[in-house]
This record gives sequence, structure tokens and C-alpha cells, in this order.
Amino acid sequence: MAAEDRRLRERATRVIPKGMYGHMSTALMPDGIPQFYTRASGTRLWDADGRIYVDCLSAYGPNLLGYADPAVQSAVLAQQALCDTASGPSPLMVDLAEALVGMIDYAAWALFCKNGSDATSIALMTARAHRGRRKILVGRNTYHGAHGWSTPRPAGTLASDREHLIYFAFNDPDSFEAALGQADNDLAGIIVTPCRHEVFEDQRDFAPMMAKRLRDVCDERDAVLVLDEVRTGFRLSTSSAWQPLGIAPDISCWGKVLGNGQPISCVLGSDRLRDAAGRIYVTGSFWYSAVPMAAALETLRQIRETDYLARMETAGRLFRDGLDERARATGFSLRQTGAVTMPQVMFEDDPDLRRVYRFCQVAAQHGALLSPYHNMFMNAAMTSADIAVVLDAAEAAFDDLRGRRSDLPAVPPGAAERAQKAAVPQPL
Amino acid sequence: MAAEDRRLRERATRVIPKGMYGHMSTALMPDGIPQFYTRASGTRLWDADGRIYVDCLSAYGPNLLGYADPAVQSAVLAQQALCDTASGPSPLMVDLAEALVGMIDYAAWALFCKNGSDATSIALMTARAHRGRRKILVGRNTYHGAHGWSTPRPAGTLASDREHLIYFAFNDPDSFEAALGQADNDLAGIIVTPCRHEVFEDQRDFAPMMAKRLRDVCDERDAVLVLDEVRTGFRLSTSSAWQPLGIAPDISCWGKVLGNGQPISCVLGSDRLRDAAGRIYVTGSFWYSAVPMAAALETLRQIRETDYLARMETAGRLFRDGLDERARATGFSLRQTGAVTMPQVMFEDDPDLRRVYRFCQVAAQHGALLSPYHNMFMNAAMTSADIAVVLDAAEAAFDDLRGRRSDLPAVPPGAAERAQKAAVPQPL
Repeated sequence: MAAEDRRLRERATRVIPKGMYGHMSTALMPDGIPQFYTRASGTRLWDADGRIYVDCLSAYGPNLLGYADPAVQSAVLAQQALCDTASGPSPLMVDLAEALVGMIDYAAWALFCKNGSDATSIALMTARAHRGRRKILVGRNTYHGAHGWSTPRPAGTLASDREHLIYFAFNDPDSFEAALGQADNDLAGIIVTPCRHEVFEDQRDFAPMMAKRLRDVCDERDAVLVLDEVRTGFRLSTSSAWQPLGIAPDISCWGKVLGNGQPISCVLGSDRLRDAAGRIYVTGSFWYSAVPMAAALETLRQIRETDYLARMETAGRLFRDGLDERARATGFSLRQTGAVTMPQVMFEDDPDLRRVYRFCQVAAQHGALLSPYHNMFMNAAMTSADIAVVLDAAEAAFDDLRGRRSDLPAVPPGAAERAQKAAVPQPL
Repeated sequence: MAAEDRRLRERATRVIPKGMYGHMSTALMPDGIPQFYTRASGTRLWDADGRIYVDCLSAYGPNLLGYADPAVQSAVLAQQALCDTASGPSPLMVDLAEALVGMIDYAAWALFCKNGSDATSIALMTARAHRGRRKILVGRNTYHGAHGWSTPRPAGTLASDREHLIYFAFNDPDSFEAALGQADNDLAGIIVTPCRHEVFEDQRDFAPMMAKRLRDVCDERDAVLVLDEVRTGFRLSTSSAWQPLGIAPDISCWGKVLGNGQPISCVLGSDRLRDAAGRIYVTGSFWYSAVPMAAALETLRQIRETDYLARMETAGRLFRDGLDERARATGFSLRQTGAVTMPQVMFEDDPDLRRVYRFCQVAAQHGALLSPYHNMFMNAAMTSADIAVVLDAAEAAFDDLRGRRSDLPAVPPGAAERAQKAAVPQPL
């Protein structure tokens, strides 16, 4: 651990619970992954010790177009000079709602908030308000944010937080039908992610047949199909992740990328849910602020008018193919799963994760920031030169790993156990 | 309603549920209060039709030092050029936690989030994680944010969202003891605001004896006393609102003013709760972003080093005294409640609110933005010249009201009923 990062961690331990919390804590990361960053530009991050990384985490999603994308930055600075948080929203809020309704074919309205968790909780409230029913079907161990009903760690939550949730196993029709039977006449809705992208797991696509069945069930029962696009939004498609399937949800949740790093999330819904969305009461002090909306308008413009997705896919393919090639050359075999724009990389024959942890540690020493357990996020600023830096770092890491295994350091407590648990089929 | 504001509302109705939602919806406001604003500077707001207002709402709290306070704005722009949302926090997060722990005497740690609702929910999770107990005592009809357990409108929420909450009436010792009896051995904590500041109600101070009793109960039972300062923070004191009482909570919730309009909220806690706070899992994509932290560091510096509070109090006294004087001169009698920095203004003999609604409507026509049902917020940029504009507008409004009553237009559906309900003592 570099000197300044260590000093900051020591100070943080005194004034922040456990020194850091949530998904940005490095407690489960390999040694040597920085906890703190001082500068971000394009594809690069600077840590507190002045080391520079090509960042394949992209702020865990928000960085879609490159850190401080010049056009987004201009929009931010121009709006910052006019008005941000005031006693009412800016007209930009209407422009932004119109832009989203114009881009997502099933969307008739937008409701803006701050966090992805806000958006998923609002989606459930809207689904329940629709017909006054209570049960929501949820994928087992699927992350839909960190509110009490979904947070992955139970401390401080109540059994009643999840009282009307019914879980089903991913892509398992029998499990789904059993859950549906349990909901009986009280089915408010179903919430799913477009693909499975849980930490410590391979990513998996949603089976089109399952998506079709969910849609049919919600149509038959006047229930609400919620698609949680907080993580996938605009990285799988310039529109809905389910557009290729020809299946529309009733409500979708967006966050992370919407303002290219500016804090904004939203819920989109079909006309059928307009009344329900108008009856719930949700709000936040900063939900109406204008600067993130200015950033979102420019981000959406680039999504509509530029080849950002093709660029990001190209970077993702170079990354995936290059890693595979270098792995093969050094005798390793990788499991690379999910879309190339949201890569998850695991090693075969690595049950206790020592290899992937050491791999990410050495890659960081060579200037590439990778995660051993969380899916990564490509961004549209990445060039072949950036990916070359990453692949050179990966090559150094594969070389380091060659012939080593039992002498590799153990991973942080809990990490290997979580990976093993994830590999076991889930009980109903 | 001015032309451009009307056009924006018509567009909004098509793409936003009910045209607007939450506390920034003008659905319950008098006609003529703008829904949209385009510019904010110091004490002034510009509406979409170019009309200028001295804003006594201060963004419903966040505007503490003046919109776009020059020093805060500089801090924002400097940090925006370096790093905002990245793959980890900035060292500013440690600086900010240290600053808060240094300013609030009972605080040993800080946990940052975005909304006030995040902060109050995290406080409850921490209280429950502390000893694994479930019951939280809450003031009846007290707003602690818009998450399911607290939102004032039930649509889309579940009875189970409030299953382990036990309500007590404000400043009512018998009601409190009855609630305490119900909690029995399962008392996790108590959450209160430093004063009662609900919409459509007079504000009331928390009885010091009650605060003392709450503290004693939490000490005796190893339960957690949570003070929700989201609305009061740094407007009653440069430290804890309860510092004058000599009573420290275990946890406090802050938001709104913390970054003078930049989106940031936080939870502060004593050393006794450090372990519990480290065991819960909460997070958000933008909770670690550096720009709002840079804004908060400068805001806190001004709180520590300037006379911002004295300036805000002076403005508040000029406002309160000036209103009273002009009311008397025109034969009206006002009920002005709460701290002068957070004024609530109602008319005596105005059960259906027609007077206060017309008053705010005419005041807006004369360039003063006031609320007929929500406490207002002074800010430190307000000068005697600003208050003079407000008082001139008030004078015009009192003149308009003189001799009128039955010919005043009815208030929006629901508003008068809420005021009448608020005036009736609450059942247990």
C-alpha cells in the first residue's frame, strides 16, 4: 500500500465506520488497490500517491463517456453558473423527461431521484399503488440497491422489510411458477435485472423465454413488470436492454450513467402506471437540482447522436480478446461473462480466488484498475491505446502468476466463501 | 400564472406524474407561485418568465449562505476540474468527516449519503444493528423523510413498512411512556426532530424535560437516541440544536444545508455506535463524489469562522418584527412560530387558509416568495434591503386583504382540511 493512501486510511479509520463503507470500500479488494483518488480525466484515475491508472471500473458505472467528458463538463459549468438547487426545478427537468420519453419506447413519464436505490424503491411503491396489491416477485440474491428490502447484509434490517417479497431462482421456470403461486391474488409486480450481474458470480443472460413469461403474467394479472437498468442502462443498448427481445417492461429504473457522473437517477413508466406514480409521495432535497439534469441532457444527446456504444463495444472486445489471448499464452484459462461493455473476469480452477486477486493486484501495480469480484464497466473514451496499457498490465500479472498457486496470499476474509456460495445452485 | 410557467406546466403534465411531485410540486401552493426557476443568485430567484423574487424558502433549506455563494462556488469549480464521481472517494471525504467530528461534540464518526431520507433510514438501521432490537419510537405525524416507513402519503407503502415503529404524541409524557411500555425489551431507539416543524402546523419547541427523559431512557436501556437535524441543521446553532440543553443524541442526521445546495447528507454518531454503523450495508453510486464534499468543507468553514448565524438571525428578526408591525397596522394578527431563522407564518382567524394563501399570492406578485403551509428558511446572504423588499410585498398583500374574506378564492383541495386536522390534538 502506498504511503499517502495508507495515511489516509489510518485517518479514515478514526472518523468513518470501518474506515469506509458500501461498494467503494476496498475491504474486499486486493492489497494495493487504492482507497482514495484525487483526479479523474477521460479513462484515467490518479491515486493519492500520484499513480495513474486506466480505470476499468468507471466509477462502478457512472463514467459512460469518459471522466469530465468535455461536452458534459461544459454543460455542467454553464448550468452551475445559472442555477442548481433552488426552491423549484428548472425547465431542464421538463426537457429531460421529454428526452427520455422520446428515447425509451414504452416510457410515457419520468420521475427523477438521486440514487439507484431511490429508483427501485419508487418502482415498487408505484407497482403496489397501481392496484393496491402487495407481493413483489424478486430474483433470489439479486441486488436492487441498498434500501432495507434489498441490501445484501442483514444487520439493522427487519424481517418485515422483506415481508411481501417472494423470491425465485434466476432463469428457473419452476421456481418462478412456485413464487407466482404464492403471490396468488396479491401480485403487485415483478422486478428483475436485464442480466444477472452479482458480485463474485459469473454473469448470465436473462432467458428470453423467461422474459416473455414475466410479461405475459403481468398482462394477465394487471401486475407491473419492473426492469432494473441501474447497472445496465445505455451499456447494452441506446434504448431498453430488452428492446432486442421485443419485450417492454411497465416501469424501468435508471441511475449511474444518466448524468455521466453527476448525481441523478430516474424511474420511467408506461401510461398505464401514470396514475399510480402520481399518487405516491416521494421526494428528496436534491432531486430537482438543475446541474445533474443539464449533464443528463448532454449525456443523452451523445447517446442518441454519437457512436459511443460502438466505441465502448470495440474497447470491450479488445479487452476480452486480448485477455483471453494472453491467458492462453501463459497457460491460464479465464471465464469471461456478460456483455463486453460490462465484463466479469474470473479464472478457471481458482476456487479460493487467490489467482484473480493476485492478478488484479499486479495489474494495478502496472497501471490497470480491475476488480476480482465485481463486473467492470467499459466507457466510450477508451481507445486501443488504453486497452493496450491494460493488456500489458495483464500480461505482467499472468507472468507473475505462472507456476505459483499455493504461495499466493489468501484473499480477504469472506471473499472466497462468497465465491464458493455463488457457484452452488441456489436453494428455493 | 405567467405565460412561460404555464407552458412549462402543460408540457410537464405530459411527461412527469401529475406534472410534478414531492415537496417542490406547487399543487398545494397559491396560484401565481412559479413552478419553475431558471436562475439563482444570493437571495434571489428568477422564474421562467424573468420575474425576480427574494426567496424566503431557500430551496426548502439547502440555501444557507446564499445561492452560488462565491467561496462555495469556487470550491465547487476547483474540485469539478479535478475529480467528482470516481471509482473511490477523494481524500476530501476524510477531511470532511474530521471537520464534522471536530464541530459536533458527541460525534466520533461520519457516514455520508445523498438525501435526508438516506440519513434517517441509516440512523434507524444503525440503532437496530446496535443490540439487534427492533422497536423505534417516533413522533406521530413527524416527517423524517419520504422512505416507506415515514412518507406522509400511504399509497404504495405497506403496513409492514412501519411494523416496528411505535408512535407518541409530541411533548406528551403520558403518550411517550405508553409507547415505551409497548416497546418493552425490544427498544432499539427513539427518533425525534429538535422542534416540531410539520406542514400546515404552528412550529413548537421540544420540551427540555422530554429531551432529558428520552436521553435517560436510552441510557438506561442501551437504546439509541437519534436527532433528525435534516431541517434544523446549522440554522439553530453552529453545532447540535440540542447543545443549549446540554443533551447529546447518539446519532444525528444532517442534509440540506451541508453543501449549501450541493447534494450531500450525512449521519453522525457517537463512539458507542461505531461498531453498529460498521456492520450495516448501505451505499449509493454518488455518495462518495468529491464535489459536494468540497462544497461542504467550505460551508463548514464559514459556519465555524463567520457570523453567518448572526446575520441570518438578524434577517429573521427583521422579517418577523416587520411582518407583525405591518399586520397590526392593517388590523391583522399573525401566529409566527419557530426560530426566526426558520419562520412559520399563519393568520389568526383563518381556519380555511384563504387569507394566508391570498397573502402569499400577492406577496409573490410583489417579488417575495413565501409559503402558506411550510416553514420558511432564512439564509445568511439576506440583508436589510432584501427584507425590505419582502416587507413591502407583505404590506401590499395586507392592503389587498383588508376588508376581504368571503370573496377570497378557495384554497387547493386538501389544504384547508390538513390545516384543520393539524389544529386538532392528536389521538394516541
